Formats: sequence, C-alpha cells, structure tokens
Amino acid sequence: MAANKHDDSVIEASKAIVASLPPMKDLTTDNITENVHAINSQTPDPRLKYLLDRLVVHLHELARETRLSTDEWMAGIMFLTSVGQICTDVRQEFILLSDVLGLSLLVDSIDHPKPPNSTEGTVLGPFHTHEAPHSSLGSDISSDPDGEPCLVVCTLKDVSGKPIEGAKIDVWETDSKGFYDVQYKERDGPDGRAVLTSDKNGDFFFKAIVPVPYPIPHDGPVGKLLKLLKRHPYRPSHMHFMFAKDGFDPLITALYLRNDPFESSDAVFGVKDSLVVELGKVNAEQAKKYDVKEGSALIEYAFVLVTDQEAQELREKKAMEAMKAQGRKMKMWKGLPIPDLD
Amino acid sequence: MAANKHDDSVIEASKAIVASLPPMKDLTTDNITENVHAINSQTPDPRLKYLLDRLVVHLHELARETRLSTDEWMAGIMFLTSVGQICTDVRQEFILLSDVLGLSLLVDSIDHPKPPNSTEGTVLGPFHTHEAPHSSLGSDISSDPDGEPCLVVCTLKDVSGKPIEGAKIDVWETDSKGFYDVQYKERDGPDGRAVLTSDKNGDFFFKAIVPVPYPIPHDGPVGKLLKLLKRHPYRPSHMHFMFAKDGFDPLITALYLRNDPFESSDAVFGVKDSLVVELGKVNAEQAKKYDVKEGSALIEYAFVLVTDQEAQELREKKAMEAMKAQGRKMKMWKGLPIPDLD
Repeated sequence: MAANKHDDSVIEASKAIVASLPPMKDLTTDNITENVHAINSQTPDPRLKYLLDRLVVHLHELARETRLSTDEWMAGIMFLTSVGQICTDVRQEFILLSDVLGLSLLVDSIDHPKPPNSTEGTVLGPFHTHEAPHSSLGSDISSDPDGEPCLVVCTLKDVSGKPIEGAKIDVWETDSKGFYDVQYKERDGPDGRAVLTSDKNGDFFFKAIVPVPYPIPHDGPVGKLLKLLKRHPYRPSHMHFMFAKDGFDPLITALYLRNDPFESSDAVFGVKDSLVVELGKVNAEQAKKYDVKEGSALIEYAFVLVTDQEAQELREKKAMEAMKAQGRKMKMWKGLPIPDLD
Repeated sequence: MAANKHDDSVIEASKAIVASLPPMKDLTTDNITENVHAINSQTPDPRLKYLLDRLVVHLHELARETRLSTDEWMAGIMFLTSVGQICTDVRQEFILLSDVLGLSLLVDSIDHPKPPNSTEGTVLGPFHTHEAPHSSLGSDISSDPDGEPCLVVCTLKDVSGKPIEGAKIDVWETDSKGFYDVQYKERDGPDGRAVLTSDKNGDFFFKAIVPVPYPIPHDGPVGKLLKLLKRHPYRPSHMHFMFAKDGFDPLITALYLRNDPFESSDAVFGVKDSLVVELGKVNAEQAKKYDVKEGSALIEYAFVLVTDQEAQELREKKAMEAMKAQGRKMKMWKGLPIPDLD
C-alpha cells in the first residue's frame, strides 16, 4: 500500500485460484451461505474449514433470523471497531466482551472439563500479565498499605491425593480500591501479583490483601453495552490462580469470598460454589509459622489438578457425546473434532 | 479510571440491580446460555433483547458445536483485536471482514429486497466516504491521467417508468492502478468520487475512467485470513453507485464489467448478472453532446428505484414469511421483527 502498486504476482496467483473455483454470481439470501462455504473449502486445514463452516452458518443465521437491518449491521461494525480500538497492551476489551456474553466461561468448561474430585476452572479475565516477579513462598504480593492483610495457605495435589511439587502458580488480585496494577497510568512495575512454586509437600502460601468487589472496566464499549442491557458491571471479591505443571492440564481458576454482595450475580458468570471460601482468621500457630498477626484474615484452599491424559480423555469423551447428540459424524484430529467424511 | 477511584454510586446502583435478578452461580456448558439470556432480558428495548438473545445462542452454539479450544478462542480474540486496531478514518477492516464472510451481501439482500423490475443492490464496501464534492452533471470525477476515459450515461426512474428528479447520487471508483483515493497516504483531497444530482428527466452523466480489477486490502488481518483459506483477494472491475431521494428506498449498488477475470469470483460476493454491463463505445452524437472523443469507452445503465413504502412492505412480507418458516411467533416493531409474547 505504501508504494501504491499492487503486486502483479498476486493477480496471476488469483487468476489461478479462480480457475479452481465454482463460479459464483447472483448471490441471494437463500444461496449465499453455501457459496461462502464453497469458497472457504479450499483450505487444506480440516479444523479451520470446520470452524469457518460453523462460523459462517451461525453468522448468516443470526442475520436471517433477526432480519438484521443495515443500520443494526453498521452499529455492530462500529461497536466491534471501538472494542478493538480501546485495546492496549494492558486492556483487552474483546476478552471483556467474551466474558460478559458468557463465552469465556463456556470455552473454559468445554476445553477443561473437570472430574468431580478436582478443582473447577473459571474465567481468566483480561488482567493476567506475564510480568509478575517470581516470588518465594511466604512473600507479600501486595504493596497496598490500605489493604486488609490476608494470609493465603494452599495445598496442591493430584486426584489421588499425591502432592504436586514444583508447579508454577500465578496469583493476581486488585488493590483495596478494586484496581489491578495495570489500570494505573503511572505505575512502576507489577503489584498484587506473583508467580510462586509449590514446595515438596505440594504446599504454597503467600501474603496478600482481602479481595474486594470491583466493576469490570465500564468506561468503554463493553460498559456501554452493559448499560443498554441494564446490567451492572460488578464482580464479587475474588483472587485469581493459574497453575502450570508438566503432565497436568493447566488450571485457570479463582477463589471467591462467601457472602459478597455479588456472589450470585457476577458480571462475567465466573462464580462456582466449589470455589467460594469463608474468610477465616489466622490462629496462634499459623501466626507464628507464617509470621503474620494472630486473628488477621485467612484464606485456605486445597487445589486438585487433573493430569493431561485425564483431561484429554474427558474432553474427547464429552466432544464425541456432544457431536453424537447433534447427529454429526465426527472424528478427532489433533485432539479436536472435525467432520468424518470417510 | 484516570482518578483510580470507582464511583460509589455505581456500586449502590449495582446492588439494586442484583436484587431484581435471579441468582446465577455454578454455570456450566449446559446452563450458561439460559443464564446469559436471563441477565440480558432486563433491557426495556425488545429489539435489542431479541438481537442479544439470538447473538448469544449462536455464539454459544458455535463454541459447543466446534468444542472450541482455549487456544482457538484466544486466536479469535487476537484476530478481532487486530481487525479493530488496523481500522482508521479511511480503513474499515470490520466491513472488509463482513464482506469476505458474505454477511454484507446477505444484510443488503434482507434489508433492501427488490421487486423484479427494480435495480438490485450490492455491497457498500469499505471505501465510501462523505467528503466527495458535489459536482455538476458532465463533470470528470477522476484526475488520473493514466486511466482510460469512460463516459457514464444513466437514467433514474421509479418502477412505473417515471423519471426521478433531484436524487443525490454518490459515485466512486479506484484509479487506474486499482487504488481508491483514501488508500494514498499523501493525498490532497477526494478523487475518483463525486456526488451528482439527477436532472428533470431523471438523467445523470459524468466522465470517469474504465474500472479495473483490484485486490481488497490484503496486508492486514483479513488478508491473512484469506491466505489461510487459500482465497484470492480480487474484486472484478466495478464502479460504485449510491442513491438517496426522499420517498425512495436507499439503493447501494455497483456496475460490473462483462468478461472481467473475476466476474464470477468476487472476493466479497457482490456480482449480480443484472449489474454486469458491456463496455460500449461513444458514438458521434454522444461525443458531441457530452464533449468526449468518439469511440471512447461508454457505460450506459437504467437505474430503477423502489419507493420506501414498496420496500417496507416487501421487507415486512419477507420477514414474516421467514419467521413463519422458522416456526417463530413474531410481530413487527418499528419495522423489524420481535417475538410476539401476547
């Protein structure tokens, strides 16, 4: 574009592609979908082909079912544009949009099915970063002097009860005002977040602050949408956890505080009862062991990871069940379903 | 956010909203959709409610049907973000995305149904601007010295054959290299575009250049998608027209040249046979009348607009037929369908 000359090789390659395509002209409400499929079916990637096939079907059905008007279509175009334009290195409005539409929770449920005896997952949210420092166990992850100190003491095991040593654990939370570090324009580094490693007993512990409820960023297009829908932007008090360990299915989850005003009305649908904890109090023994004040706030939790193999088997089993229920003949390809054309 | 203090009134208003909502927790693959509907149903706008209902159903079904993985979801998030980020005042990548997925053509077909004896519509494309000068009939809209001069002579009538005087007609085309004016970084104003007015006989005419095939912008995310799908980015040679006149349904359309290499393989699905014209030659009489060279290129076309009322009646008739075929009990509200709950 800079040179304002179209590449001659592209037109020649394009003419060659045309020769291999069925002619398409006079497309209407009734035949456009099959023609888009035909032209998209040139891709050699069977998964991409399946994804595009379903995407186009649902996009077109949405327009047909609603008789989408040109004005509404343009409003949608401008909305998506503004969602993209407000994104920065530290703000991900499309994740936020996915969150408030329940898609994030759904994708996590599909991709990380959990056997009954393991820890449930929940939404990642848009505030995870890769810049948290690696901290030693017992570190204080928050520098907020106004936060109520909170000791967090956890265990990490597999489903058979065996401790998991050496797992990488990302934790992140807001400050006492309900803002993540990245929401401050003038910030000099990560705060309210850390990367920890579980010890040989599968234990990990750190000092933090008691989480507070906070609104998701609602000064942008997603906030405008929530307002139009008469929805509130609040998330109940929670602390994020992400676990990674070779051989185990990655777990993205969070702990929520019991009796938060938004416990049953999370703007991003993330709360699961198994992840709701009572805020406890540090006893004398713990106060001494972890060098914190007796009677200060305490969160305790026993996390349980499933192995890669367990997760994959369950994922594939559920996928095949779902495909069967839809009457589709599918097979697995690189761990994901594609149409079985044989 | 700038002040880094959440507005206290928002949390109070949010608590009030919570009280009116059904509690939602422990959301799964199976129950997330109905819960998102419940929370979105607070909006007093019945059309927005219906649009969100269908959007969420299709978005969730897409994830369920494909067993969308977290990696694929994240690839989608990053793709949409890049589509939004490349947009500028003069580049609309979301319209381009809608175009290559066939959505633009579909929405135009739904929203602007045409009786058989009227001119068909087609895709707007991302290159219409509102900065074209109002030009008198016979003006030369292109300053490109390398373009092949082309006289365009058209009539504009209603379906009964009555001339339409005083219609506002936007016309736009690329230069001879296949670029619109806005695709040049250093440009000093509109070129290859004009706004004309039909005369008392419903006639309008202007000097332009013979359109050439060109690729849609393929240096961005949409181009990458086309490449993955083994699709070419070319559009056949065409000239855009947009008509506005009180009492008539707006018409967005284009004329295409017969025997273009991409006539049956438009990257954005826009070609309709009724809009394909043979490139003619200016005869002696025309040469004299329009002050152009005899034998130079000529495009002639007779455009026919439908009235607002005709269009609305046809739109509503087709909408009700489609709703009936889907088994939905609907009614019209401000000209668009919503569920009939009575």
